[in-house]
Amino acid sequence: MSDTNILTGAGIGQGVAVGPVLRMSAPLPEPSDQPSTRTPDEEKARVQQAVATVAADLRERASTVQGTAADVLEAQSMMAEDSTLADDVATRIDGGKTAERAVFEGFAVFRDMLKELGGYMGERAGDLDDVSQRVVAALEGKPAPGVPQSDTPFVLVAHDLAPADTALLDLTKVLGLVTVEGGPTSHTAILAREKSIVAVVGAAEAGRLADGDEVVVDAAAGTVTVSPTDAQRADALRRIEERAAALAGGVEPGALADGTPVPLLANLGSAAGAEDALAAGAEGVGLFRTEFLFLDQRLAPDVAQQREQYVKLLSAFGGGRKVVVRVLDAGADKPLEFLNDAHEDNPALGLRGLRSLRANEDILREQLTALAEADAQTDADLWVMAPMVSTVEETRYFTELGREYGLKTVGVMVEVPSAALLADRVLQIADFASIGTNDLTQYTLAADRLLGSVAGFQDPWHPAVLRLIGEVGAAGAASGKPVGICGEAAADPLLAVVLVGLGATTLSMSPAAIADVRLSLKRYTLGQARSLAETALAADGAAEARAAVREAADRFTSPAPDNRNEAPQ
Amino acid sequence: MSDTNILTGAGIGQGVAVGPVLRMSAPLPEPSDQPSTRTPDEEKARVQQAVATVAADLRERASTVQGTAADVLEAQSMMAEDSTLADDVATRIDGGKTAERAVFEGFAVFRDMLKELGGYMGERAGDLDDVSQRVVAALEGKPAPGVPQSDTPFVLVAHDLAPADTALLDLTKVLGLVTVEGGPTSHTAILAREKSIVAVVGAAEAGRLADGDEVVVDAAAGTVTVSPTDAQRADALRRIEERAAALAGGVEPGALADGTPVPLLANLGSAAGAEDALAAGAEGVGLFRTEFLFLDQRLAPDVAQQREQYVKLLSAFGGGRKVVVRVLDAGADKPLEFLNDAHEDNPALGLRGLRSLRANEDILREQLTALAEADAQTDADLWVMAPMVSTVEETRYFTELGREYGLKTVGVMVEVPSAALLADRVLQIADFASIGTNDLTQYTLAADRLLGSVAGFQDPWHPAVLRLIGEVGAAGAASGKPVGICGEAAADPLLAVVLVGLGATTLSMSPAAIADVRLSLKRYTLGQARSLAETALAADGAAEARAAVREAADRFTSPAPDNRNEAPQ
Repeated sequence: MSDTNILTGAGIGQGVAVGPVLRMSAPLPEPSDQPSTRTPDEEKARVQQAVATVAADLRERASTVQGTAADVLEAQSMMAEDSTLADDVATRIDGGKTAERAVFEGFAVFRDMLKELGGYMGERAGDLDDVSQRVVAALEGKPAPGVPQSDTPFVLVAHDLAPADTALLDLTKVLGLVTVEGGPTSHTAILAREKSIVAVVGAAEAGRLADGDEVVVDAAAGTVTVSPTDAQRADALRRIEERAAALAGGVEPGALADGTPVPLLANLGSAAGAEDALAAGAEGVGLFRTEFLFLDQRLAPDVAQQREQYVKLLSAFGGGRKVVVRVLDAGADKPLEFLNDAHEDNPALGLRGLRSLRANEDILREQLTALAEADAQTDADLWVMAPMVSTVEETRYFTELGREYGLKTVGVMVEVPSAALLADRVLQIADFASIGTNDLTQYTLAADRLLGSVAGFQDPWHPAVLRLIGEVGAAGAASGKPVGICGEAAADPLLAVVLVGLGATTLSMSPAAIADVRLSLKRYTLGQARSLAETALAADGAAEARAAVREAADRFTSPAPDNRNEAPQ
Repeated sequence: MSDTNILTGAGIGQGVAVGPVLRMSAPLPEPSDQPSTRTPDEEKARVQQAVATVAADLRERASTVQGTAADVLEAQSMMAEDSTLADDVATRIDGGKTAERAVFEGFAVFRDMLKELGGYMGERAGDLDDVSQRVVAALEGKPAPGVPQSDTPFVLVAHDLAPADTALLDLTKVLGLVTVEGGPTSHTAILAREKSIVAVVGAAEAGRLADGDEVVVDAAAGTVTVSPTDAQRADALRRIEERAAALAGGVEPGALADGTPVPLLANLGSAAGAEDALAAGAEGVGLFRTEFLFLDQRLAPDVAQQREQYVKLLSAFGGGRKVVVRVLDAGADKPLEFLNDAHEDNPALGLRGLRSLRANEDILREQLTALAEADAQTDADLWVMAPMVSTVEETRYFTELGREYGLKTVGVMVEVPSAALLADRVLQIADFASIGTNDLTQYTLAADRLLGSVAGFQDPWHPAVLRLIGEVGAAGAASGKPVGICGEAAADPLLAVVLVGLGATTLSMSPAAIADVRLSLKRYTLGQARSLAETALAADGAAEARAAVREAADRFTSPAPDNRNEAPQ
C-alpha cells in the first residue's frame, strides 16, 4: 500500500477506530435569482414560518446542552429573529425576489458588514451564515446542514466542528472523528478527549475523504489510513480489543514503576460526572469547574443553590478523598451578564478568571461561603483554587480571602507565565499550585489555542513551557507544597511521565484518559522520569522534545510483545 | 493644601506642565422624540446632506494622517454612508421621526446589534457611536465632539483619546494631557511619549476636573495638582526651565558613570524622523518600523519603492552608524489585505509578525531584497530583525533567509516568553536579540496592553518580565552577542539603568526620551546597575520593584542641589 493512503494529523489519546466515512453535509447551493412566481405576501409568510421553525429548533437544541454550546445556539436563535434583518429581507421580497434569495442576500449583506466593520467578526459572521443556511434549508424543505444521521456507526469527517455540533454528537454512532482544522488542544480536541472519542484533528488532507471510504483512525500515531488492507484492518481490530482488555484491568492508585505515588485525579465539569470518574479509577478531583453553575443564568446562583451542588460533589468523594474546586473562571470570552459583558479586543488577555471575580467580589464571597458550608457538611478533602492568577499580590489576595472563610487548603492555578516565573514567591503564600497547561502554553508561545492558523505553536511539549512547569515543580519541592497538573497535557501518557519528572505531584485529566496514563506511569521509575524531563528540556522545540523523549523512553522499557511479533522477517 | 487636590496616575516621561484645563467636549444630548414638523422628504434630504458632510470630513481627516488613525477614519466614513443604515433611517423618518431622532435611533439599533452579536464589537460599536454623534451634530449645526479648539495653550483632559484624536493634536496648544483611562503603555501613552507630550494617563479622578481649572501635570511623579499654590506654580515653572536647560546640554554618546558605553538609539516609524532623532542625539536606529510602507496600500509596495525609502533612511545614518530595521509586523489587529485579513478572536495571539510573513513568504523576500539592495548603496551598519519570533525553529528560518540575501547581521525580536526562555538557543543562531518590552509584558502577564481594565498588569517593572529580560541578557553575555531593548521600557530613565544591569547592551526609544535617559545612565556605574537589577528581581511585584529600586538608587547618588535646597527649614 502506498503512503499516500495515510493522512497525518494530531491524534487525541491512544484509541483506534475502523469504519466507513460520513462527511458533514456540504453547504446548500446559492438560491437562484429568478424572479418569484409568488406574491410578496406569500413569500413573506414563508420567511416568517421558516424563521420561526429555525429559531425554535435552535432554542430547543440550546436547552439540551450547556455552556458555550448553549450560548452560541441561543445567540443564533436571536439572529434568526432579528427585526432589522427581517425588514431587509422583506424589502428584497417587495423588489421581486424569492424568499430563499431574499434571505440569502439579506443575511449576506449583514455578514459582509460585520466582516468589514472590524477584524474580529469572523466567528459571528460564521454563526450568521449558519443561520442563513438553516433558514434557506427550511424554505427549501431540505435537512439543515450539520452532522449526518446514520443508522450504522461511522467515522465523522469534518472541516471543523462547531461547539454546537460537537456537543450533540451521538456517541453510539460516531466511531471516530477526523477534522481538517484544529490543533491538539483546540475545542474540538478537548471535547473529543472529554468524550473519549478516537480522533485525529488538523489532518490537512482529510478534505479528500469521501462518504463510504473505509478508514483506520489511529490516535496514538496520529494517522488515518484510507482503504486499509485486510492485514491492516485485522491489526486495528486486534489493537482495539487489546486496549479494551488492558483498560478493563485493575484501577489501583496511580504510581511509577518504583512505587512513587502519583495520584490520578479527574477534571470534572459538574457533579454529575463523579460516578464515571470513580468508575474510571479517579482517586479524587483535580479540577472541578464551577462555570456550569453560572453559565445558564442571567443572575449568579445564590449560596443555597451553589451549596447543594458542592455537597453533591463532595459527598461523592467522601472518605477524605481530595476535591480541588476552581472558583468561577469567566471573562469576555465566556461572558456572564452579571460578571463581565465588556467588549474586549483580546478576551484571552482580558478581565477574566480571578481578575473579573475581584472586580465583582460579592460573587466570589458568595461562592467561598457556599464552598465552606458544603465543606462543613461533608468529609471530602476540599481544596479551593483561583484561575488566572498572575501576580504575588493576587495570590495573597485570594489566599487570605479563602482563609477568611475557614477554607483550610487554598491555592492558585498557574497558567500565566508570570505566576510560573515567580512560583517560589507564589508558593510561599499559597498552599498549593495547579498548572493549567493549555493556557500556560497559549501565553508562553503567544498563540491562541483555538486559532487554527497558529495551532502548530500550541503544544505543551515545547521546552519553554516545560521549563516553566519545572520552575513550579522546583518551587513546590523547595516549599514542600503540592504541584498538580490539570491541563490537557496530563492526559498525554508519555508527557505525563515528563511532568512527574518536572516535579508534578498529582495529575488531573478527563476520566477517559486516566487508564492510559496509569499504564504509562507504571513503566518508568522516578529517576527515569527525571531523565526524560531533562531530555525534553534540552530539545529545541516541541516536536524535537516529543521525539527525543519517545526514543529515550523506548530505551528504558523492554520491547513489548507487539514489537517482537513485528521483528524483521 | 490638601492632598485631595492631587490626582495620581501613570506619568509618561519626566516633564512638567502648568496651565488651564480644557476637557474633550461632552457627548451631545439625546435628540428629542417629538414628531417632525418637516415632511419626510425634507428630513431625508437633511440626513443625506449631513451624512455627506460627515463622510467627507472623515475622509479628509483620514488623508492627513497615516496608519491606524487613517484606517479608523476611513472605516468610519464608510459607516456614515452605509446603505443599510440609510434605509433604516429613512424608514424611521417615514414613521414621523425627525432626522436627528431617526439617525440617533437607527445607529443605536445597529450599535446594539453589533454589541449583542459577539464579545468583540465594543471598539467598532464605539466608532459607530462617534459617527452617529457627528451626523447628529451636523444636523443640529453644532461642532462635532472631539478635541476642543482654543487660541491659548491648555492641558487637555479626556476620558481617553481615540487614535484619530491623538494623531491630530495641535502641539503648539496642548501643554499636557491627562486621561482617566489607559496604562503606561497604552496607545495614548505611546503616542504621548513619541510626541513628547507631558502626560499622566489612568488618572481615575480626572473626571472631576472642569474647564479652566489650573493644574500642574508632573509626569515624573505621576501627579496632577489642581489649583496649585503660588509656591507650587513657581516650583513647577522652575523645574520646567531647569529641565529645558539640562536637556539643551551636550549630546555625547550614552554611557554609565564608569564610562561603560550604552549606545542610545532611536525608534523610528519612517525615514522622515531621522533628522529629529539625530538632533536628539540618537547614535543610530534601534527599531525602524516598516509598517508605514505597507499600511496605506491595498497592495504591497514593490522592491523599488521600498529600496528608495531604505536608502533614504540609511543615508541619514551614514558613517557606519547602526540601523536596525524590523521587517513588516502586521496581523489581524493591523490587517493588510494582501497579508492577513482573517478574523481572529484574539489577534494579539494570532497570525502576526513573522508568522504572517512566513505565510506570505514572497512579501518577506521582496522586503529582504530591497533591504539588501539599499545596504549595498549606503554605508550605514544595517541590521535586520524579525518581529514576534517564538521558537528556535523560526529563528533558524529567518536567520537563514536573511543570510541568503547577503544581509550580514540578522536577528530576532524577543517579545514572546518562549523566545526569552530559550534565549540561549536563539542566540546560538541569531546575530543579536532585541527585546520588545511592551509585548513581552503583555504576554508574560497575559494582559492586553491596550485594555484599560487590566492596565495595572502592564508594567515592565514586573519582576517576572525583568527575569525574562535577564535571561536574554545572560544568553547575550554567554554568546558574546548584543541584546538591545526597543520597547517603551527603555524610555523610563530609572528602568533603563535596571535594563543595563540585566544585560542590555543598547537602548532604543522615542527620540524625545533620549535626553532624560542619557542623564539618568550617567549617574550609575555598571556595578550599581547590576545591584539595582538584583533589587528589582527580588521584589514581589512591579510597584515594589520600582519603589525598591528608587530607594536603592537614591542611596547611590549624592543629594542633588534641588534636594539640598529643600532641606528641612
